[in-house]
Formats: sequence, structure tokens, C-alpha cells
Amino acid sequence: MSLKSFLPILEWLPSYNKKWLKGDLGAGLTVGVMLIPQGMAYANIAGLPPIYGLYASIVPLFIYAILGTSRQLAIGPSAMIALLTATSLGSFVDLSIDQYIAYAILLAFIVGVIQFLLGIFRLGFLVNFLSHPVISGFTSAAALIIGIGQLKSLLGIKIPRSHHINVVLENIYDNFSEINWISFGIGVVGISMILLFKKINKALPSQLFAVIFGILVVTAFGLNTGKNVVDIVGEIPNSLPKFQIPLLNWDLINSLLPMALTIALVSFMESIAVAKAVQTKNKEYKVRPNQELIGIGLANVVGSFFQSFPTTGGFSRTAVNAQAGARTGLATIISGILVFLTLLFLTPYFYNLPKAILAAIIMVGVFGLIDYKEVIHLWKSDKTDFFLLLVTFLATLTIGIEKGIGLGIILSLVIVILKTTRPHVAVLANIHGTHFYRNIERFGKDVILKEAILIVRFDAQLYFANTTFFKDKLEELVVKKGDKLKLIIIDGESMNSLDSSGVHALIDVIDTYQLQNIKIAFSGMKGPVRDVMRKGGVIDKISFDHCFMSIQEAVDCYEHQCNNEPSEKKFNKFIEQSN
Amino acid sequence: MSLKSFLPILEWLPSYNKKWLKGDLGAGLTVGVMLIPQGMAYANIAGLPPIYGLYASIVPLFIYAILGTSRQLAIGPSAMIALLTATSLGSFVDLSIDQYIAYAILLAFIVGVIQFLLGIFRLGFLVNFLSHPVISGFTSAAALIIGIGQLKSLLGIKIPRSHHINVVLENIYDNFSEINWISFGIGVVGISMILLFKKINKALPSQLFAVIFGILVVTAFGLNTGKNVVDIVGEIPNSLPKFQIPLLNWDLINSLLPMALTIALVSFMESIAVAKAVQTKNKEYKVRPNQELIGIGLANVVGSFFQSFPTTGGFSRTAVNAQAGARTGLATIISGILVFLTLLFLTPYFYNLPKAILAAIIMVGVFGLIDYKEVIHLWKSDKTDFFLLLVTFLATLTIGIEKGIGLGIILSLVIVILKTTRPHVAVLANIHGTHFYRNIERFGKDVILKEAILIVRFDAQLYFANTTFFKDKLEELVVKKGDKLKLIIIDGESMNSLDSSGVHALIDVIDTYQLQNIKIAFSGMKGPVRDVMRKGGVIDKISFDHCFMSIQEAVDCYEHQCNNEPSEKKFNKFIEQSN
Repeated sequence: MSLKSFLPILEWLPSYNKKWLKGDLGAGLTVGVMLIPQGMAYANIAGLPPIYGLYASIVPLFIYAILGTSRQLAIGPSAMIALLTATSLGSFVDLSIDQYIAYAILLAFIVGVIQFLLGIFRLGFLVNFLSHPVISGFTSAAALIIGIGQLKSLLGIKIPRSHHINVVLENIYDNFSEINWISFGIGVVGISMILLFKKINKALPSQLFAVIFGILVVTAFGLNTGKNVVDIVGEIPNSLPKFQIPLLNWDLINSLLPMALTIALVSFMESIAVAKAVQTKNKEYKVRPNQELIGIGLANVVGSFFQSFPTTGGFSRTAVNAQAGARTGLATIISGILVFLTLLFLTPYFYNLPKAILAAIIMVGVFGLIDYKEVIHLWKSDKTDFFLLLVTFLATLTIGIEKGIGLGIILSLVIVILKTTRPHVAVLANIHGTHFYRNIERFGKDVILKEAILIVRFDAQLYFANTTFFKDKLEELVVKKGDKLKLIIIDGESMNSLDSSGVHALIDVIDTYQLQNIKIAFSGMKGPVRDVMRKGGVIDKISFDHCFMSIQEAVDCYEHQCNNEPSEKKFNKFIEQSN
Repeated sequence: MSLKSFLPILEWLPSYNKKWLKGDLGAGLTVGVMLIPQGMAYANIAGLPPIYGLYASIVPLFIYAILGTSRQLAIGPSAMIALLTATSLGSFVDLSIDQYIAYAILLAFIVGVIQFLLGIFRLGFLVNFLSHPVISGFTSAAALIIGIGQLKSLLGIKIPRSHHINVVLENIYDNFSEINWISFGIGVVGISMILLFKKINKALPSQLFAVIFGILVVTAFGLNTGKNVVDIVGEIPNSLPKFQIPLLNWDLINSLLPMALTIALVSFMESIAVAKAVQTKNKEYKVRPNQELIGIGLANVVGSFFQSFPTTGGFSRTAVNAQAGARTGLATIISGILVFLTLLFLTPYFYNLPKAILAAIIMVGVFGLIDYKEVIHLWKSDKTDFFLLLVTFLATLTIGIEKGIGLGIILSLVIVILKTTRPHVAVLANIHGTHFYRNIERFGKDVILKEAILIVRFDAQLYFANTTFFKDKLEELVVKKGDKLKLIIIDGESMNSLDSSGVHALIDVIDTYQLQNIKIAFSGMKGPVRDVMRKGGVIDKISFDHCFMSIQEAVDCYEHQCNNEPSEKKFNKFIEQSN
């Protein structure tokens, strides 16, 4: 492994092309400008003061620029991870705000360590167990929870935090008379502005326009005090993130661990998905999942020493970054510098920023994540996956965010396993005038059925959980076929692997039908399966004359008693070979 | 469903053939004679007084004879289930013997209810998740634990009960001077007798001979008292099992539930395996797994109301039953009656039975279960399954009996899942002079490679956990193939199913390679996969001209630009049809 593979920045920095600078600068500034209101808004979702959103938008960006393999990924706070952060800490009661902040920062540290270790041990593939419907169901539910949770800021009413939609909606209903219509009006205008400018050009800093609008309205009409007061961000301390060792309490780490693992995987899933999507249009580099884990992991770890809560590569910012012309990690560095300068000089200007505008930014962002098209598509194309999406969605909404995704993952694996225990089995026959053998149920009229031969295709690996089904199904087909049956051809094209239970089953089957004077032949078994059959003694048991390259050869051999020097003889070496 | 399917006894009793009676009577008596010492011995393993072994050999037998589908299965106490019973109750400290008995009986009740419910809800297939290597490793370890545990009775020394082999062996070593050599001598003669008579004829009541020998020696030499005393069974109350409602304490039931589930599955696994093995030689009936669960389940439930601890169909007794000529459940009823009569009249005669003889019976029984041949076979034929067997064996021995089997089950499923995340992928090419397309790595010199065409076979279902691998692997192969590549043929013969993540991956792949001017074609996709491709929009995306019946057709079409009215046209209806 070269130094470059550990420090991907070396892939572009030493050979930096001046032509890239324009794109990097433009994109870096655009994303930086996006990050400022987004960071504050997402800190709000996490239950943290706005400034921590800015803290999380500096150090992690620099670290990722050095260690990450994607050149467009825009690291920073994300709505979903902020929500998961709030959920993780929600179970601790009676925390002071300082404790809460310390816990959130510790969480970033643990998440980072987990991601780093996953990367080192090359376990990035684990994220593949998050299936499409599970991600989609989870994301939509999380978006709904975040969006509904922002209603109180949009409406300017004070109700307790909750991650249960029904509780939030009930509270709003009960406090309907308390709605601050000015706040609501500002929010609605904010939402409209963001949507409108986005429509005009995605690279426009539409969120910043909404922020400026909000500050101007509050300042101009004196809405920060008096009768028509709206909730504002208030004073943001003019301080940079301090170096500070996270609160390394072992009991606390233990209790945060399960949620930290969830956050580590979800945040990696979020960033790797968008990194790969962007990379397909940028062929000059390659995203390496395990290095990405190391990059994001260390961004979180180092970030946690500078008061950052968990961060990841965000969907929308990354898209904007790519669209605005980012060519290298320099763009991300520029974004970080911009946030740094803001912290130094500009925080007083955010004093009058109405919280309704932050809510507007969040709501536009998260409602875009609700993927109703996928729901319709799955309903039409794949009922099982539709069901999986629905269960994950509902479970995330009702029983809890982390339990919802956990249930989705387990359920999707259970479904995969259960399906292979009762796989599709086809009886094949020759399509008239061809050498194709196909399912008689699908190719009904065009196939030639023979009474003496049963050709079976078992569409799964033969392994412990389906050997009983295999034997039962075969018996059922044999009984159905009747007394004239003399030969069963087991077509191996779709039998992808064979374990020792499968070997026992095949030997059982050979023994059972031998007693009934029915021969067994195998056709088209693939290499890895042939290897197991040979080592497990199946081929010794039936000998090579019962193994064929194709169904046709098996049928020919049977029908002509193999007298005419069957063509398969010359392929014996292929059937024998075992490498 | 007919009444017969609920009461399988109606399948044979109304049409009972007098000719069967001789076999049934002989087998019933033989098994009954076996059951008496075995029952007492297995009660000993379970930590119960000997008489409970006889109680468990009456009522459950009658119930199974009415409700079970196997006509030879010999129900009753089993060594493995007795061991699991002892393990379940081992975690309760300071139980009086009466409490211990009440708990064991409650356990039978819970096990029975679980089995009954599994049967009613047709969940018998769950037992298939116990793979061959896991069963083998678990059984061998359990046999070793039971066998070693009997050493103290064989040697006539008093050491505390333990299910940890190392503890037992250490204790024996520490108490070496205490060994009662007379007891040991009786035991060794007992073992030799059982093995010898078994060798002569398996249907001989060899265990009974050992029992008689033991009683005679103790009586003749006065070994039940004085200087040369050996441990004897002592007084067995002359009482029949009483009707008595199990101790239905909810908290207790809750704490026994996990172990009861293990026992329910293991005992079902034990009995269904032997029932199926015996049935293959008796074609006049069919073992139905779910009805078996109902039968064994109710045998346990009803048994628990008559002081029975958990029972199941035993390996060795069932084999003897079949060999001795049992034709129907009447044999089992006769065995039960024999035990009943023994309880009424013969228990005083067992007073002088040395415990070393019971130990001998158990040790011969369980050491026969250690399947070292399978270990050697797996070492040679299947390293993964060998590893699985070894882990299950070691875990059962060291971390605990129920945890061992649990770990084995989980590990075997994890391996299955992990294997499908990185399946075998083959690049195919035409074998010279044939229409076969095979793996170029295996058929090296005989294949014709074409620079413009890449033919890939992915040996697994394409689903969420391997779509990334699929895309990465394809890209790797495309890069390796070089610039002249114009067509990728994805051979579908081994792609057994496709979920919505797989659909997304295929669409991704089509889009990606379109940008590089490489076409994608599919050949030999099977029905269920075609259905998903159609519904998911993959076929619409590439249109029918890119779907072929076989690889050869795809190659022909590409090479002749499909000008010559390709033969696959006439199969369009097959490719289109989606039923």
C-alpha cells in the first residue's frame, strides 16, 4: 500500500492544475454559504445551540479533504445524523445543556472510532446490508419526523421536543391558539424563496437568500422585541472551536455504543451513496469505500476534539458542490475556511435570524428526501420490497428511529433466507425444434414432454435450510410423473452452490430412487458445485456417465442407451476437472 | 382436512391386520424392556429420581400412538433431552428435590405447548435451520458431556454435578483414591455385555441382561451394605403416575421459555430425523412433520399432567422397534403397558440395581452418537462445514450446551449470507466446436475468446447485499477486457432471483456502460427474474432485442448486426410472457 492510498490528498495536491481553481473556489464558497444556515439548523435538530453546527463545519472538513477519496463530497452536519444524535441522547433524562453538548461530542468520537475501525478491518461491505427499500423507508420516516418536528419553530409555538409524530401533532392541535402568524408567514415566505431559487438554478445560495430576508424583516420591523415578537436565534458567541478532549467515561461510552454503531453505518451509507453517485460523472478518481470509512471516521474523531458533533457527507450539499464545479478537496477546504471566517467576524449579524427560517431550510431539505416515487414503483414491481419499505417506514415512525432501521435490516435478511428455503422449482422440457429446455408451465404448448424423463431445475443453492424441501418437492414431482419414469435429470445451471447437507441430500436422492429403478443424471453443474460433488463422493457414487454438459446430451444418451459413443465423452475432462 | 389427518391412529386401527400383531407385540415388548433401564438412566441424567424415567415412559407413548404419523417412532426419555432438561434447571439454585421435579414437569408442559403451536402454525420447517454440521457438532459434544458425566457413577465416587467436562475430569483426578473398584468392575462388565449382545443381535434386550447381571451380583455378594458396598438405585416407590396440574407460574414459565424453545426444536429434530429414516423403508405411510410436532407436543403436554418430564422419539429405541418388526403404533402402546405393569409389580426388584449399570447403559448409548466419521468426511470435502462443526462442538463443550447450538445456528446462517455477498463470478467463452459457453478459467485452452464481447455469469441471486459487489466486479472485468469491448452479455442462468435493489443495479449498469458505448444484453434469464425485470422497467429500458434465449443467440445477433432475421425473434413471446 502506498502513502497515496492512505492520504488521498496526495493524489491531487502535488499535481494541482490551476485550471481547477476557479471551479474549486466557486464551489467551495457556494457550499460554505449553504453550510452556515444548514449547520445552525441541523444543530437545532440535534438539540444543540446553533454555534455547534458551525463548529462541526470546520475541522471535519479539513480532515476529510486530506483523507477522503471523493473529491466532491461535502462533509458536515446532516439532518438525518442530527436526528439520530438527538435520539441517542434523548434517553438521558435531566441533562444540563453542558452535559448534553459533552455527550453529543463524545458520540462523534465513538462514531468516528467505529468508522475508522470498520475501514481498517475492511468491513465497509457491511453497509450493503442496508437494502434499498429499508433505506428508503427509513429515510422517508426520518424526514417526516424531522419535518414535523420543525413545525413548532415554523408556527412559533412552544411545545416539548418529541420524536413521535402523533405527540407533536397533538401538541400543536392543543396549542393552535398560540400560533404566531408572523413567524409562520416569515417561514412560508422562506420556504417559497428556497424552492423558487432552487428552481431557477440549483447552485444559487437560495438558503442564504432566505436567511438574509429573515434577518432583514426582523430588523426592519423590530420583530425581535415588543408585541409582534418572533423567535430568533439570539446571541451566538463570537468564539472559535476550542481544543478539548471528549468526555471519555467508559460507562457512558458503553451505553452510547449501540446507537453510535447505527449512526456510524447510516452516516457511512449516506455519504458513500452520494460519493459514488457523483463519482460516476468524474472518472479521474475512484471512491474506495474502506478508505472513505477511515476518512469520515477520522473527520469525526478529530472533529470531536474540536467540539464537533457527528458529521457526514450530505446529499444536497454534495450535489451542489459537484454542480458548482468542485474538482478537488480544495473546495471543501475553502468551505471550511469560509465558516471559520464567519465565526470570527459575522456571528453578530445572525442575532436577528428568525428560527422560522431555520425551520424552513430544514423542511425543504428533508421533505425532498421523502421518496414517494420509489413507493409507487415498488408497489407495482415488487410487493415483497414494498412490504419491507412500508414496515421499515412505519416502525421508524412508531416504535423508534433506531429500532425501525434495525427491524428493517433483520427483516430483509430473514426474507432472503426464507425465500431460499422454498425456492422456485421448474420442470423443464424441450422446446420443439430447438435445443432449449424450459419451464413447462411457462412454455406450455411449445414443449415436448416425455413420460420416461423428468427434468428438474432447482433455482437456488442446495444447502441445509432447503434440502428437505428439495427432497419433498422431487418426490412430489416423481409421484405426479407416474410409473413410466425411468430417468430424473437434475439440471445444475441454477444450483449455485452446495454444502455438506446438500451432498447428503443428493446421495439420499440417488439411493431412494435407485430402489425404485429410477436413474439420476446431472447436467450443466457448474465448477464450484462439481468440486463439492467430487469431494463429497456424489460423483463417485453415480460415476461420470451420469454427468452431462447439457440436458440434451443427457436425454440423447438415455434414449440411445449411450451406444453411439455419446458426444459428452469428449467432455469428460471438463466434468472431471476440479480446480 | 379429514379427521384422519388429525388422528393418524385412524389410518391403521380401523383396518388393523391380524398379521401385524406378531411384529407389533414382539417389538412393543422389546422396546418396553429397553425403556425400563433407559428411562431410569435418563432420569438420572436429568437429575431426577429413577421413577420419573418410568413415568415419562407411559402416558406420552399412548398420546403419540394416537396422534403421531410415524408407526415405528419409539417415544420416551432421551439422553440429549434429559441433558438439556438438567441444563435448563441448573441455573436455579437452592431448589429442593420436589421443586426440581415440579420444574422439570413444567418444562415438559412448555416444550409441549411450543411444539404444538409450531405444528398448528405449520412452522415445522424451522428445524431445517439446524444444519448437518451443527447437529453433528452439537450431538457429539452433548454425548461427550453426558458420557463423562456418568464417570462418577461408573467409578462410584461422589463429586458435584457439572456440565463442564474439565471440571468433572479434575474432580475425578482429585478423588482418584476414592474410586470404588467393585463398582467400576460391574460397570465395565455391563458395558461389555451390552456391546457384545448388541453385536450378536440388535434386537436382543442387551441392556436388560446387564441390569439382571447387576442386580444378581449385588444380591449374591451382598454389595448393598457392609465393607464392599456399591451405589445402588435403592427403593423405588411402588406408585403409578398421578394426575397433577403442572406448576403454572408465569414468571417461571417466562424464565424457562428460551431453553424450552431449544428443547422443543432439538427434540423435534431428533425424532423427525429418525422417523424419516425409518419411514423410507416403510412405504405404507408418510411422516408429516407438522403433525409430528402436534403429536410430540401433545404427548409432552398430556404427559406433564401425569408427572412426565420432556420426552421425544429416541434414535436407538426407534431403530430397535423397527427392526423387531413394529408395524403400527400398537407396538408403542404395548411398550407403555409393559412399563405400566413394571411400575405396578416389579419396582422392588430394582432395589439392588447398581448405579454403575445405569451409567454403563448411558455411556454405550451416547458414545455411539459421536460421529467422528462425519468429521473426517467434512475435513476432506467441505472446510467451511468442518469449521462449523468444530465451532459448534467446542462452543457446546465450553460455553454451554444451549449457547453452543445457538451459536452454531447463527453462524451457519451468517456464513450463507456472507457467501452470497461475494458469489462466484465466471467469465464465459465458447468451447470450440460446440454451443457451450463455459468458465474460461476452467476450460482454458478449449475456449474461443472474443475481444468485443464479455460474457459474465453471476452465480447468485442479485439482491441488496451483493449489488455493490456485482457492479464493482463487472467494472473490474470491463477494465481488464480493454477498449475493444462493445457488448456485455449477462448470462442469467444462475441468477435465481432479483429484488428491487438488483433492478436498480441493472439499470445503473446499463446507464453506466451506455456512456462508454458498451451495450448490455441478457441471455437465458429465467421466468421469475424476467417478471421482475419487466415490472421493474429493465426490459423497457433496453428493449427486447437485447434479451436472448441463449448466449449463442446473443453473440450471433451482435456479430451479424441482427440483419439476418435472428432466430430469437420467434422466441419473443417467451421472453415477453410474464406469468
